[in-house]
Amino acid sequence: MPEPAFAFDRGVAVEPIDDTRWRAEVESRWNIGSAPNGGYLVSIALSALHHALPHPDPVAVSAHFPRRSSPGPVEVAVEPIRVGRGHSTAEARLEQDGEPRVLVTATFGDLGSVHGPTLIQAERPEIVAPEACIRAEGPVAPEFVRQFDMRLTPESAGFAVGLRSGRGLMEGWVRFADGREPDSRSMPLFADSFPPTMFHLMERIQWVPTIEITVHARGRPAPGWLQCRFLTRYVIGGYLEEDGEIWDQTGGLVALSRQLARVRD
Amino acid sequence: MPEPAFAFDRGVAVEPIDDTRWRAEVESRWNIGSAPNGGYLVSIALSALHHALPHPDPVAVSAHFPRRSSPGPVEVAVEPIRVGRGHSTAEARLEQDGEPRVLVTATFGDLGSVHGPTLIQAERPEIVAPEACIRAEGPVAPEFVRQFDMRLTPESAGFAVGLRSGRGLMEGWVRFADGREPDSRSMPLFADSFPPTMFHLMERIQWVPTIEITVHARGRPAPGWLQCRFLTRYVIGGYLEEDGEIWDQTGGLVALSRQLARVRD
Repeated sequence: MPEPAFAFDRGVAVEPIDDTRWRAEVESRWNIGSAPNGGYLVSIALSALHHALPHPDPVAVSAHFPRRSSPGPVEVAVEPIRVGRGHSTAEARLEQDGEPRVLVTATFGDLGSVHGPTLIQAERPEIVAPEACIRAEGPVAPEFVRQFDMRLTPESAGFAVGLRSGRGLMEGWVRFADGREPDSRSMPLFADSFPPTMFHLMERIQWVPTIEITVHARGRPAPGWLQCRFLTRYVIGGYLEEDGEIWDQTGGLVALSRQLARVRD
Repeated sequence: MPEPAFAFDRGVAVEPIDDTRWRAEVESRWNIGSAPNGGYLVSIALSALHHALPHPDPVAVSAHFPRRSSPGPVEVAVEPIRVGRGHSTAEARLEQDGEPRVLVTATFGDLGSVHGPTLIQAERPEIVAPEACIRAEGPVAPEFVRQFDMRLTPESAGFAVGLRSGRGLMEGWVRFADGREPDSRSMPLFADSFPPTMFHLMERIQWVPTIEITVHARGRPAPGWLQCRFLTRYVIGGYLEEDGEIWDQTGGLVALSRQLARVRD
């Protein structure tokens, strides 16, 4: 198998151990601090699931994170549950040192041949163009962020210089740094790629670990930028939701996401 | 074990087969047409998980529905994944005739002893009081609905007499018909209890099967009414999300939910 051309595809590459297990390498370049990004770990699971299922697009992916993972070898146990005409469903489990770290359940479909009504009852928010946004980069950005060309709106970028907006909102644009185009299988990664909305609500920057994330791929993205919006409305006793919306460059919705995360006092 | 006093607790009662499997009866009173309600099936899984895990509240529950279920016997296979200090995580699988029908992954916590910041950045919508709403009942209502005292706002109730609002919104109040008070473990049921938002968007009433639903219990509800709001913004090629918000009678948010569902042409 030739080496994939793009970093993301190399980062999620899996090789079969047997019919139900796959081996992969969790690369440290997708770290936030010392821990791999959750969306990246989910993407490794999706890579194995993609080999096991006939449908191409993960229309619904749910992931729970019972234990932290580390860079290094990982095994993915895959169990196909049902392959139907329109959808197929399977479970995947990321294991390190014999312990489950991430539990993924995914229903795949084919967004290239959908049939059914289309009714859009929401407006895509107008934000300033990527060129007028602030690029997330430099020594303060986690290694993970350097895998992307990520542009935050000036208001969203303010947290990096201590300007908290007081609103749980992060908006901007993102694409892979090396020119790989987005697809439905990279939606869980992009849905977990922006700085936490809590950075605008907390006195000091701290880790906001994900308990659970669900991502619905709603359309195949056109090439180019993705416009992203992440919103937190309810922080209750340290639990918060982060709701994500992702549109492609043509303005079509391509994913909705929600995660439950946790902050300490 | 004494017979539970309330219909919901009887409906989700499980008895152990061995350390990892439970037996239950899917009751037809929770049917929508000929199929059991999805939130009810998830509640049976949660009932088994509750016995297997030390933490009381399902803070994050994800369920995929690869196959339809039927009233009758069901087995629940439970696999605890990790029991930690603050959270515990497990998988459950509802099986009928040896086939997996519902896949549930749940992270439990303790909403009675949360610690961490609370910041509310959303307004609970003001809707008319239960007394001024329209009770969902009568011969057209599915058997399932009779398990509740469900009051829809006049605008939301209009679909039943052909008055489609043209907006993917269902709002109202709900509680159990027999006086059982709501708790965190009944949130997945309430999150799937209202008529589909699509009833205000479709020419004719039809089945809107759930592909996946995730429910986050965000607080223990006070006794009394639950205020519910379900919103669909994007119907794309027959796929739609239905976002739920549930507040208790004191106005506190007690659950957020989202499901991915499907309508045909």
